[in-house]
Amino acid sequence: MRVDLDTSTDPADYSFSHDIRVRFAETDAMGVMHHSSYVAFLEETRVEYLRALGRPYGDLRAEGHDLAVLELVLQYRRSARFEDIVTVHTRVRTMRGASFQMDYLLLIGDEICASGATVHGVVDQQGRATRAPGWLKELLTGLPG
Amino acid sequence: MRVDLDTSTDPADYSFSHDIRVRFAETDAMGVMHHSSYVAFLEETRVEYLRALGRPYGDLRAEGHDLAVLELVLQYRRSARFEDIVTVHTRVRTMRGASFQMDYLLLIGDEICASGATVHGVVDQQGRATRAPGWLKELLTGLPG
Amino acid sequence: MRVDLDTSTDPADYSFSHDIRVRFAETDAMGVMHHSSYVAFLEETRVEYLRALGRPYGDLRAEGHDLAVLELVLQYRRSARFEDIVTVHTRVRTMRGASFQMDYLLLIGDEICASGATVHGVVDQQGRATRAPGWLKELLTGLPG
Amino acid sequence: MRVDLDTSTDPADYSFSHDIRVRFAETDAMGVMHHSSYVAFLEETRVEYLRALGRPYGDLRAEGHDLAVLELVLQYRRSARFEDIVTVHTRVRTMRGASFQMDYLLLIGDEICASGATVHGVVDQQGRATRAPGWLKELLTGLPG
Repeated sequence: MRVDLDTSTDPADYSFSHDIRVRFAETDAMGVMHHSSYVAFLEETRVEYLRALGRPYGDLRAEGHDLAVLELVLQYRRSARFEDIVTVHTRVRTMRGASFQMDYLLLIGDEICASGATVHGVVDQQGRATRAPGWLKELLTGLPG
Repeated sequence: MRVDLDTSTDPADYSFSHDIRVRFAETDAMGVMHHSSYVAFLEETRVEYLRALGRPYGDLRAEGHDLAVLELVLQYRRSARFEDIVTVHTRVRTMRGASFQMDYLLLIGDEICASGATVHGVVDQQGRATRAPGWLKELLTGLPG
Repeated sequence: MRVDLDTSTDPADYSFSHDIRVRFAETDAMGVMHHSSYVAFLEETRVEYLRALGRPYGDLRAEGHDLAVLELVLQYRRSARFEDIVTVHTRVRTMRGASFQMDYLLLIGDEICASGATVHGVVDQQGRATRAPGWLKELLTGLPG
Repeated sequence: MRVDLDTSTDPADYSFSHDIRVRFAETDAMGVMHHSSYVAFLEETRVEYLRALGRPYGDLRAEGHDLAVLELVLQYRRSARFEDIVTVHTRVRTMRGASFQMDYLLLIGDEICASGATVHGVVDQQGRATRAPGWLKELLTGLPG
């Protein structure tokens, strides 16, 4: 499964949002948030999304599963600065077998800061691809697992 | 300019390579290098490439230019582990106006660990898009600037 | 001014507290929060403290000041894990001229996770030591600046 | 065991040194290396020291041991900047039971950039304090384990 770059820029298309304030440690000598720091913002939002759905990521790990990141794409539009609050919108885009894509739209106020997507694979504790648990499929797609 | 995902998996197609050893700080609780840590590996390799070309990045900044990252894509194949040496191959893929794409192939020994690409825009100190200096164009494309 | 290691382990001795949840990106291959990740927790708490006092750090920077970190000490007691909520307690310990020490106590529930201190110097935009603005002295010490 | 702050500022007092170039990702909006980034420099130097001694850290982990960080202290003198090469000098200061202190002196050229120390405890895979393997004691102290 290859990442689909065509993500929506309309916040209304997303299922969940989470606010994160930019740390000073996340800025760089250009005076803005370093482009690598966005990756942890996407991750924190995924984790909060699962928690909001009633299934913290820790539960998934306790059951012997992990969600490996297979692909990552980020498109940077407007720099985020120290102390800015970034609202990260996310949703599950597609699920195929044990892989699924999540899309992200990052806003500062009502301006687009960045957009992106990640493709994940369900793996076991040894990092081998495995079937997604039924509850995860159901949770992420809204369809019976 | 949109990132072109179709990067080569043949090291011979690349212009430059740089070895980086995985730090313990770069691993995560899955026991492998965290997916965000790869971003700094691409950056370090770009910086070393410019230095190898005789034009350290600091020169570019001293002239009032910066290379903003506009897009980033990473495809993860095989986990990197603590103390692994990752060889990052890179090359300039395309240059259009003030934007250019760099491709990356990350190997551990002769196994592909990851591949990726970044799209950059030449900006001035206020972060505004500006023309690439002639020497940079010439340097990156091998053609007169 | 040399850091004073003798920080209080009683949360009641502190002026302010702030909760931060451990990100997966902040863990390491030992399965716990990496020891370097705590440093950003102290910083985020300082920044939130200033904001709670009505003087966001951005105001200080806009006035041409910065707070350089001169010393840092951390004592690790109990590992923090992914998704743990760490409560960081802080207070100003001492202020001498343009330097001051802040103390920190990090709790997970009611167990001590870590303790620490930072020594800061007020500097100008060129990084040179400078007098602390009166309002900052007053804010941090409760005494007229 | 409490960290001893009185570290030497004479490079000749140290056993090993390792050069690390400052990454752009390690800088912050003050234009210098962020104070948290030094922590990974100390760690990388410890790891290289063990490798130079013929006992890579991975061997220690494969034997079921880890070196937990119990304390960390850093004193910042002169800012490091993007592309600076920092020479990190290190040595074992004291070893008491399963704990030992390492000292660090960080130079840029012949100017002191920072100094510091870490206290470590040998732990098993569950993070419990355990006896240091004889070879590690011998390696670190030069005395029979």
